Amino acid sequence: MKLSIKPYKGARDFYPEDQAIREYMFGVMKQTVKKYGYQEYDAPLIEPIELYKAKSGEEIVSEQTYSFVDRGGREVAIRPEMTPSVSRMVAAKRQELSYPLRWFSIPNLWRYERPQRGRFREHWQLNVDLFGVQSIAAELELMMVAGDIFNAFGATNEMYTIRVNHRQLLNAIFFNYLELSQDQGLGMAHLIDRRNKLEHGQFLSRMDELLTPEQKEEGLAEKILKIFDIKKLKDLPSSLQSIPASLELQKLLAACSAQGLNNIQFDISLVRGFDYYSGIVFELFDNDPENKRSMLGGGRYDGLVGLFGVEPLPTVGFGLGDATLLNFLTLHHLLPELKSPVDLIIAPVGDGETQAGATLAATELRKLGVNVAVDYSGRKLADQFKAAQKKQVNYLLIVGPKELESQKFTLRDLSQSSEVSLSLKQVAAKLKVT
Amino acid sequence: MKLSIKPYKGARDFYPEDQAIREYMFGVMKQTVKKYGYQEYDAPLIEPIELYKAKSGEEIVSEQTYSFVDRGGREVAIRPEMTPSVSRMVAAKRQELSYPLRWFSIPNLWRYERPQRGRFREHWQLNVDLFGVQSIAAELELMMVAGDIFNAFGATNEMYTIRVNHRQLLNAIFFNYLELSQDQGLGMAHLIDRRNKLEHGQFLSRMDELLTPEQKEEGLAEKILKIFDIKKLKDLPSSLQSIPASLELQKLLAACSAQGLNNIQFDISLVRGFDYYSGIVFELFDNDPENKRSMLGGGRYDGLVGLFGVEPLPTVGFGLGDATLLNFLTLHHLLPELKSPVDLIIAPVGDGETQAGATLAATELRKLGVNVAVDYSGRKLADQFKAAQKKQVNYLLIVGPKELESQKFTLRDLSQSSEVSLSLKQVAAKLKVT
Repeated sequence: MKLSIKPYKGARDFYPEDQAIREYMFGVMKQTVKKYGYQEYDAPLIEPIELYKAKSGEEIVSEQTYSFVDRGGREVAIRPEMTPSVSRMVAAKRQELSYPLRWFSIPNLWRYERPQRGRFREHWQLNVDLFGVQSIAAELELMMVAGDIFNAFGATNEMYTIRVNHRQLLNAIFFNYLELSQDQGLGMAHLIDRRNKLEHGQFLSRMDELLTPEQKEEGLAEKILKIFDIKKLKDLPSSLQSIPASLELQKLLAACSAQGLNNIQFDISLVRGFDYYSGIVFELFDNDPENKRSMLGGGRYDGLVGLFGVEPLPTVGFGLGDATLLNFLTLHHLLPELKSPVDLIIAPVGDGETQAGATLAATELRKLGVNVAVDYSGRKLADQFKAAQKKQVNYLLIVGPKELESQKFTLRDLSQSSEVSLSLKQVAAKLKVT
Repeated sequence: MKLSIKPYKGARDFYPEDQAIREYMFGVMKQTVKKYGYQEYDAPLIEPIELYKAKSGEEIVSEQTYSFVDRGGREVAIRPEMTPSVSRMVAAKRQELSYPLRWFSIPNLWRYERPQRGRFREHWQLNVDLFGVQSIAAELELMMVAGDIFNAFGATNEMYTIRVNHRQLLNAIFFNYLELSQDQGLGMAHLIDRRNKLEHGQFLSRMDELLTPEQKEEGLAEKILKIFDIKKLKDLPSSLQSIPASLELQKLLAACSAQGLNNIQFDISLVRGFDYYSGIVFELFDNDPENKRSMLGGGRYDGLVGLFGVEPLPTVGFGLGDATLLNFLTLHHLLPELKSPVDLIIAPVGDGETQAGATLAATELRKLGVNVAVDYSGRKLADQFKAAQKKQVNYLLIVGPKELESQKFTLRDLSQSSEVSLSLKQVAAKLKVT
């Protein structure tokens, strides 16, 4: 039987060159969030399906989860997102934990969807959450963290924009200003969310389907189009300008500006898919029109922790996916060239006895802080050269019976094709300097 | 509806204090294997079930995998081990890759089994594999890596032993020396593998069940007991001493000794569960009788890459689980005390205006390399003190309107209850020194 060499559909193999990029990305993320005092946590990959049914949203649970029944008859899912798990963990220690609580994690998540550019069935997502802060200081901090992560990768403020909206403003628009029914409001939220994925004609006909003949006669379609074309808070109808949600948004935009965070924009069309958001929501977009998808999204979800039967807890969090971030870094030429982690390859010239001597030399060099691989293939020296070059390692150390006798070894700089004869201590000193 | 706060059975939540230990453990592992030139890779969490059916062993596939049918009708499993995935990845680039190839990964793995001490349904496992080396130089290196990892955690050679055996020696014992049938050999391998988990009486009666009346009459049970009590290669019957497997083991033991690796022992009862091992196998055991389980296991599996329809590739690898390692480190008091990654908490005294000033101060300190969290709770100063102490952070910076005016801030050392008045630059300098 011949087995397939392909990875599971929509999932990725990470060869060392891919993994090095991922590790670089995770490293920058971790360093940035730690500056703000966030601490890492992790949760099991599998959770009971109820956890997602509660608040993740209909589409995710019924169409996109990897759910199954385990051997003990429990209905479970591979996590499609981390927010329910982290809420569960905080709820479990609601009284013991000290607030404000700052937590982060970089879990892998699974969703059954059609694989496309920057969208995989398995992806990793930085999750950053701040628990216990009622004021917009929380939203402000998370937007600052989001921006700082992108800046830490070398992005400039011109490269991206954070768009912000408020769930209560949307509710006021749907149910007070437009006087939609509950079902119509949900349908409209979903439609607005997908607006820039649809052609304008498609969008209009879907909207048409949502409205009653009376509503259409009253010109509700035009009213909807007009309100969702508003670009600034001050252009909102006056009945909407004075509600708490609008005032909170104004306050947040002013606070961002006071902290020097200037690439923030009000976006009346911003919805976000999860049912649990209760206040301000935000997403970070690439300004390059080539890359239209949101890269980072989050918001306030004050009600989730309370679903576990404990006192509710104000919470703001965001998620940043690895695949969309990688697209951004590639498109803007922000990925650094990553060096081989192997400092030196030892090429033994001779039989098992020489290999044993080469191994002793390698141990010595490792103790001196050098990362050393030994070529145990037994090939000719010329072939060992070629293999080292293919691995993009800079230095090769030739070890034969003569070298072991004299304890002087030939160090070859593969980038310059030059050679010097050195003791092991000298080799270590040279490699640490360069 | 009230949701459960418990993690899925047999899986663990990692709160920041647990995650810090895990990150410490992974850090030591990574640093050690990188010294030997190993590079990190990763593979998808999910694979087609065929991948495990091929060679993982009957018990794992039919009783222990988390397998299910995906929404596209594919029969898949959450990986119970990493070796099939890494073999698939190497096979997919069999020609392009340069050998010897050194790879490692620390995946999470899932097995449906009864949770018990040091044994969970989800665990992480360091996987280290060396591809392309035919000689025992490969086994030697992996045993050196294994020992070095334990030593890097502060273990001494007296704390653990690496036991070694050879699959071909076991085959020669079962089929040539004892003249068992194929089925009897498999049953006996399984029984020998579980020997120290069974009472001696149980072991004897199970062995009895495997043998025919004729075999029992010929005294085969006694012969089996006698051979599996042998402690040294030189005590093997002469017909078994000269076979290639025994000679290879002798050579390996001598090579270990030449490299100063002295806590290696021949163990004729060592089997290892996976069907794919083809040569030398080894396991690392705690010498403390409290902790009987193997912590690390591996061996040679030259046939696995070839199952993907490419030229076979000699391979040696091992796996080291996080839970058994943590038991070892705890039992031997080797876990270091891990400090809070938060250097400083800022306590704003006053309203939103003061919090905005505190946020600007935090940004300044972060630029100077300090990890700073701001307490946005709006609580009284005394309560902010208590919260900071609970978080085990050493320093608190008090920021009020007066401090913002003068740009001199009160830094409180929470461990000594002392205070000094400093500029932000002085704060950063002080925290970096201590």
